[in-house]
Amino acid sequence: MIYFDNSATTKPFTEVLDSFIKVSTGYFGNPSSLHQIGGQAEKLLAQAHTQLAKLLGVKMSEVVFTSGGTEGNNLAIKGVAMEHKGRGKHIITTEIEHASVRSSMEQLAELGFEVSYIPVDKHGRVDPTEVKNAIRPDTILVSVIHINNEVGTVQPIKEIGEVLKQFPKIYFHVDHVQGVGKVPLDFYDCGIDLCTISGHKFHGLKGTGALFVRDGVQISPLLSGGGQEGRRRSGTENVAGVVAMAKALRMSLELREQKIDHLQQIMGTIKSGLKQLPEVTIHTPEKNAAPHILNFSLKGIKAEVLVHALEERDIYVSTTSACSSKRNAPNQTLVAMGVPADQAASSIRMSLSYENNQQEAEKVLTAVIDNVKRLREVMK
Amino acid sequence: MIYFDNSATTKPFTEVLDSFIKVSTGYFGNPSSLHQIGGQAEKLLAQAHTQLAKLLGVKMSEVVFTSGGTEGNNLAIKGVAMEHKGRGKHIITTEIEHASVRSSMEQLAELGFEVSYIPVDKHGRVDPTEVKNAIRPDTILVSVIHINNEVGTVQPIKEIGEVLKQFPKIYFHVDHVQGVGKVPLDFYDCGIDLCTISGHKFHGLKGTGALFVRDGVQISPLLSGGGQEGRRRSGTENVAGVVAMAKALRMSLELREQKIDHLQQIMGTIKSGLKQLPEVTIHTPEKNAAPHILNFSLKGIKAEVLVHALEERDIYVSTTSACSSKRNAPNQTLVAMGVPADQAASSIRMSLSYENNQQEAEKVLTAVIDNVKRLREVMK
Repeated sequence: MIYFDNSATTKPFTEVLDSFIKVSTGYFGNPSSLHQIGGQAEKLLAQAHTQLAKLLGVKMSEVVFTSGGTEGNNLAIKGVAMEHKGRGKHIITTEIEHASVRSSMEQLAELGFEVSYIPVDKHGRVDPTEVKNAIRPDTILVSVIHINNEVGTVQPIKEIGEVLKQFPKIYFHVDHVQGVGKVPLDFYDCGIDLCTISGHKFHGLKGTGALFVRDGVQISPLLSGGGQEGRRRSGTENVAGVVAMAKALRMSLELREQKIDHLQQIMGTIKSGLKQLPEVTIHTPEKNAAPHILNFSLKGIKAEVLVHALEERDIYVSTTSACSSKRNAPNQTLVAMGVPADQAASSIRMSLSYENNQQEAEKVLTAVIDNVKRLREVMK
Repeated sequence: MIYFDNSATTKPFTEVLDSFIKVSTGYFGNPSSLHQIGGQAEKLLAQAHTQLAKLLGVKMSEVVFTSGGTEGNNLAIKGVAMEHKGRGKHIITTEIEHASVRSSMEQLAELGFEVSYIPVDKHGRVDPTEVKNAIRPDTILVSVIHINNEVGTVQPIKEIGEVLKQFPKIYFHVDHVQGVGKVPLDFYDCGIDLCTISGHKFHGLKGTGALFVRDGVQISPLLSGGGQEGRRRSGTENVAGVVAMAKALRMSLELREQKIDHLQQIMGTIKSGLKQLPEVTIHTPEKNAAPHILNFSLKGIKAEVLVHALEERDIYVSTTSACSSKRNAPNQTLVAMGVPADQAASSIRMSLSYENNQQEAEKVLTAVIDNVKRLREVMK
């Protein structure tokens, strides 16, 4: 199997699953229980908080464990909106956000919030000046994705953060789900107030995630109850899951150190190979692109057809984000970039992990080239 | 180790963990992905939906997977409130709900909803007539716990359901977290519209749960995005977790068949043993009580002291719900039952599972008796 759909989900590391089992069997207590079975679980939970915070370069108190990226994005956006609506009801975001950000905005719009959607240029990139121009006296939140999940464009988070430093009352949320472990992001330096990550995108487990909430930032909880996670996210903590996530992140960051050049080489092989094909368009920009995502179209070849053709060779790629795949929705980012609809309908996303290798890249290339040739002949 | 704190959390079944690992390694795809790696995960997810629905006696489309009991309760209550607020903003609940229900109500009150809290009698039981009397033309939701988590009283869900059948526009939510696998509840027969369960309370994994949402009932999602779970709960599905939960429920229901009498016998042993002690009060009622929860006070002995004394003999019990333990909050249910504060401060909760046995019960009894004697002598 050659799995090139790591932006949809990744295979959990074996070591991560080992940790999960170890904690689930040996430390199954409820961290809120007074006795030592609970105390042991609480200790592990605190260790996971500390470890994850250290890996993200933040304080332990700033890490809120969630059930994943969707919850993190919903909690950040709705949490700020509901807590600070007395001060204003205007939010700024972009046209190329993940469905969980877009839908949260739509729900808030129904509650009387106003949302400005910043467009992107042909590379899928937001202009920080446009963010600045959209700011109003009643703006309370700006939410921007770090690495776009469909095309891989890196957004100018630092520059947007600079703009926002002049507006200290506006909160800055970043969806870092596709970036973490791949493209470094200094939360403090960029002036980020809230930042979402998801465990299963870096070989952790589904159902785990974290939201960075800068000290001093108040949010209204989406899930209230026992007051866990500093009253920001109630519910019995998934101790084994968060221990596993902290391990997955440590391993991913270590792999980054060792393998980022290698990943770029592999991606380079694929890109140059594809460019040899006639009528191919690479949508992922040359500059400011993530190292692990490549989006391209092959004229006249429907993306789904190619996805299934590659599947027959045990190669797995995607058409767009997994969330949008089933709905047969067009690739939102490509549309925002001004890519014509028929080209967008031909777009393929390959997303790699540090587990992939050069040999796989060459096999995939051969398979794409063969299939494109065959499909174009059939269609003649 | 003798673990008598199963209402706080349970130890996952080995078979449940085996399933989790099997799915996490062999079927790690994103169920929304178009290719077969996603397709296989989707198939497992559908099977888990079907299996859980069958075990709960409902339809597959009526099961929404969540991250646990707190999310289920928040989603049910806020989901109905936000979706149907145009029709009315009055909600009825009781004084003995879990923190996740109470807090959800408090958050809604801040948004302009009005909440009526129905009191309980000295057995911790709600009177269906009082629910009826609290109904107003603007009532949209009634939320009642099935088995109270602190004392174990079984609420008259069927009778409340009967009352509500005369008010078909009022939704009926039941927190079934402590009941599932222990005390049968026929969702349809009781006229229940929404019902919460949590995986880790029946030897499943933390971070898993489900909300029953009767076909036709519209709720506003708390987590929106990719539209998973019939647009009621977005986020990449924790496939391994839900497969594990379905297995845990199947095993728990099988154990119920085999061991419910045995469980009642064990509980009987503990109860009669405790009654031999001077100045003991059993708070769990004789009638309408769950088979696995026992709450009692020993005059003059602070609950925390006894919890830690038992801990030294490797016996684990609790003072109140795990969620309230750390906050040192009084046992809310006992307060509502009219138990004096000093007696409530002495209350101990023992909560059993089908894994416990007679020998353990006897050991616990001996340990309690020894300690009570010793502690009372010390205090003389």
